[in-house]
Amino acid sequence: MGSPLAEHLEQLALVDHHVHGTWTQDADPARIANAFNEADTAPLADPTSAWDTQLGFAVRRWCAPLLDLEPHASPETYLQRRAELGELEVARRLIAPTNVSDWLVDTGWSEGLTSPDGLAALGGGTGRTIVRLETLAESLLPTLVDAGDWAEAFGAAVDEAARTCVGFKSVIAYRSGFAVDLTPPAPEAVAEAARRWHAGLEDGRAPRLDDPTLIVSGLYAALRTHRPLQLHVGFGDRDLDLASVDPLLLTDLLRRPEVRGVPVMLLHCYPYERHAGYLAQAFPEVYLDVGLATHFLGARGVGVVARSLELAPFRQVLYSSDAAGPAELHHLGARLWRHSMTQVLGGWVDAGEWSLDDARRVATLVGRDNARRAYDLD
Amino acid sequence: MGSPLAEHLEQLALVDHHVHGTWTQDADPARIANAFNEADTAPLADPTSAWDTQLGFAVRRWCAPLLDLEPHASPETYLQRRAELGELEVARRLIAPTNVSDWLVDTGWSEGLTSPDGLAALGGGTGRTIVRLETLAESLLPTLVDAGDWAEAFGAAVDEAARTCVGFKSVIAYRSGFAVDLTPPAPEAVAEAARRWHAGLEDGRAPRLDDPTLIVSGLYAALRTHRPLQLHVGFGDRDLDLASVDPLLLTDLLRRPEVRGVPVMLLHCYPYERHAGYLAQAFPEVYLDVGLATHFLGARGVGVVARSLELAPFRQVLYSSDAAGPAELHHLGARLWRHSMTQVLGGWVDAGEWSLDDARRVATLVGRDNARRAYDLD
Amino acid sequence: MGSPLAEHLEQLALVDHHVHGTWTQDADPARIANAFNEADTAPLADPTSAWDTQLGFAVRRWCAPLLDLEPHASPETYLQRRAELGELEVARRLIAPTNVSDWLVDTGWSEGLTSPDGLAALGGGTGRTIVRLETLAESLLPTLVDAGDWAEAFGAAVDEAARTCVGFKSVIAYRSGFAVDLTPPAPEAVAEAARRWHAGLEDGRAPRLDDPTLIVSGLYAALRTHRPLQLHVGFGDRDLDLASVDPLLLTDLLRRPEVRGVPVMLLHCYPYERHAGYLAQAFPEVYLDVGLATHFLGARGVGVVARSLELAPFRQVLYSSDAAGPAELHHLGARLWRHSMTQVLGGWVDAGEWSLDDARRVATLVGRDNARRAYDLD
Repeated sequence: MGSPLAEHLEQLALVDHHVHGTWTQDADPARIANAFNEADTAPLADPTSAWDTQLGFAVRRWCAPLLDLEPHASPETYLQRRAELGELEVARRLIAPTNVSDWLVDTGWSEGLTSPDGLAALGGGTGRTIVRLETLAESLLPTLVDAGDWAEAFGAAVDEAARTCVGFKSVIAYRSGFAVDLTPPAPEAVAEAARRWHAGLEDGRAPRLDDPTLIVSGLYAALRTHRPLQLHVGFGDRDLDLASVDPLLLTDLLRRPEVRGVPVMLLHCYPYERHAGYLAQAFPEVYLDVGLATHFLGARGVGVVARSLELAPFRQVLYSSDAAGPAELHHLGARLWRHSMTQVLGGWVDAGEWSLDDARRVATLVGRDNARRAYDLD
Repeated sequence: MGSPLAEHLEQLALVDHHVHGTWTQDADPARIANAFNEADTAPLADPTSAWDTQLGFAVRRWCAPLLDLEPHASPETYLQRRAELGELEVARRLIAPTNVSDWLVDTGWSEGLTSPDGLAALGGGTGRTIVRLETLAESLLPTLVDAGDWAEAFGAAVDEAARTCVGFKSVIAYRSGFAVDLTPPAPEAVAEAARRWHAGLEDGRAPRLDDPTLIVSGLYAALRTHRPLQLHVGFGDRDLDLASVDPLLLTDLLRRPEVRGVPVMLLHCYPYERHAGYLAQAFPEVYLDVGLATHFLGARGVGVVARSLELAPFRQVLYSSDAAGPAELHHLGARLWRHSMTQVLGGWVDAGEWSLDDARRVATLVGRDNARRAYDLD
Repeated sequence: MGSPLAEHLEQLALVDHHVHGTWTQDADPARIANAFNEADTAPLADPTSAWDTQLGFAVRRWCAPLLDLEPHASPETYLQRRAELGELEVARRLIAPTNVSDWLVDTGWSEGLTSPDGLAALGGGTGRTIVRLETLAESLLPTLVDAGDWAEAFGAAVDEAARTCVGFKSVIAYRSGFAVDLTPPAPEAVAEAARRWHAGLEDGRAPRLDDPTLIVSGLYAALRTHRPLQLHVGFGDRDLDLASVDPLLLTDLLRRPEVRGVPVMLLHCYPYERHAGYLAQAFPEVYLDVGLATHFLGARGVGVVARSLELAPFRQVLYSSDAAGPAELHHLGARLWRHSMTQVLGGWVDAGEWSLDDARRVATLVGRDNARRAYDLD
């Protein structure tokens, strides 16, 4: 493991191009356990099971020392120390060392979480906003007088958001999956779907956007702004059907002229990271990261990072943590990514397959420069 | 490779939660060769080709010394020595060292194979019975006077079996695949399907259960007993369509209320072990193993064992051999699992990512305790 | 890494069972960059990005020294030196050391590329011809008077080609994917499709064969000759839908009686190499290689080579480069395959899991003997 490379990676200030806030209030052990399980949406019957996971082991290994504990401290010891320190102090200790210069925060899920600025206050660097299209739509709906004007109103809201955000995100993966018609919907179909949705609101239903016509229409509204468009891909909670969020289902969408010149960010990608890499080679607009998987896989994360460096051109791979909630996730995102990149690239350098200079350069591209260029952060 | 961990794994008495009997009669080279190929259902045109496989190499590496041969002895030498010793002596030599405390035997495929007690007599420990639902159905059918009573009669047979078996197994993977309607069938549909099946029997056809309505109805009958339900998943012989046995196709079934609280065991899983791991994180009832793949992959088995320890909580991973027929498979199941776990967990211990205590504890969970708890073996 | 094994691999003369010619004319940097990207069919907006890939790094690592440069020379230096030497000298320097005894050249894509004999003149050994079915069909179409005679005429052309070629290839993957009806089409359906295609020709359209009925009919015409049939599988340029070229979609075709006794070569297979390995175990006629992926994955290629040695019997795995165009690809195909095989097999030898003799024997099977036998080259 080339130690000049490790040092380079430590000193590289990262752009975390997809992240959420950290908790603003103290959390009890049950809440922490649920945050340590991405996929199960029900309260865990046995919260201790969340610690017997790669993530739980990684927390004990890497975060415990920052709370003045031995590595591998027991969950009980860890939880007790965590409670003593309080959420704010835990967040300070864990997030400050991430050495992140830019936090691109998806503000579409924000309850109980710090704002972009709040996160930057803890971690240093600058907070920036990614606008979640479905959340924007859900906040717009109740303000509409005539739902038939949906396309214009939503387009205007997206354009307005584009003035201050650095990109958009869609969770179509959770709402309909990718196995729906992803071609631009006809205006009448959009108007009708909007009226139906609006009528549901009047019947007292919460304005959750599930309609594929409106969601897909929203994707095109975002594409028109030429801001980068993030798409949740692969692994997530069990609300989604993992089989229907294979990025290959996006192939036809990526072929469309509306996508030309607009960065499309495939987030997470596990277990489809090799499919995403193929798309990145096939389409110069496609970028991918393996955030979320990195910390959930813990000691196994090195493999997913390595697989993200197969077919994808190195200028189209990004770093993200996708951390949300407990500051352990923000810490591990950066910690395990650096650790994995050092192992993977360092292994190639040691074997003489890559030069050390190239390894440093690729680390910088993935950790910082690709995102700075794609999101136009300078 | 931490040698205290290797020693711990050697001394750990395993629960083999999915296994079949071993041969009760001597086998000739052609029969052995066919048993060394899982996927091809036709007699092998060239039996020597079965030895030029990862499994063949693993047999020569690990089993030869127990037959007083050098490691890597030639297939001819191995077969000659095997014939000298006879099937019973081979089985004694290979199965006794597996250090298995509990053999959970799928008795649905039993011709020419030892019973659960017979296997335990060779290997030590206790034999227990897993009832294969399709076999139970096929033996019940001819006894029925009115096939319209199928649901009641089969439900009663399942309840009766549940009094003595430790779990049920379905081979729906082989009969229809998972891409069928897995919701509970309507009673009339079950009655009609049973009548159709029964009529076929009267026409002289063998009572092979292929009808998805009856198979799915059987799954729910088993779920009602709250006994663990094993499902063949992934790799098997070419009667199945590998694409239609991706465990993600079970997602909707796993979401159903009938599954709550009932352990669902995803067997084998290759090449979908990462999909199975996702389901294990999403659903606390889901367990997985990588049996069958372990011995068929031989020197490559370490990777599949490692991948089974990604998203799945460690309390939901199990050991099985899925050995059937030649005692080499029973031996290799345990041998290669221990070998792979030592390499995988030992690698993490050596790198400081896991503590030795945790590695020992996870080995014990996967090799023994998870199965003891899920099958209520104590 | 056992050095006797490395030496064995270096001295083993390979059969490259699937390759294309090398460039006959000097190429400019933009053309080279596009040839370094398999998936993107558009001219690369930024040709330098093609060098920031695993392939680009592998070219600089392995090919630079043969052009008298330091390993890892910069792309600019490399391109300058390449231009100085000219395409012919570059090809001589890079292809001669591949130590290939037989080049099985797909001549269906030949514009600006050397013929089989031309390639052999550069690399040594013997050039042989693989006839691409779709190209054969496209050249036959304009000569037909009555398109209703298509089946007979095409069958005769295939039989004629079989007298001199060593095998056939289909790019059905690019034309329709595998998710079409792969059963033998009815004669009337073939005749009608041929008439429709012929009529398009009369309307002035280029005779590109896209019709699944005719393509599938062509597969059966080739199978009747009992010559090996190569199928492009998996990764390729973005004209294909990667999801529709999963080899598991070929399962029903492989079950058909027409396939019995005819070698079916699954080419490339990335990222489905584990699926292909399952098919190889299930069907004795199925062979697989991981060409194309080997050089596109560069330092990551060792993993794909290892995965090709899981379920597939070792007598059903082949070597190919799938090189086309720049001689770097011909060089890297052989270089990286030898390198990966040395690492993979050598690792098992060092760990005591395989004997050195077995490792040498498997290397020889995969690199040479399986192809010699399947294509009847002796």
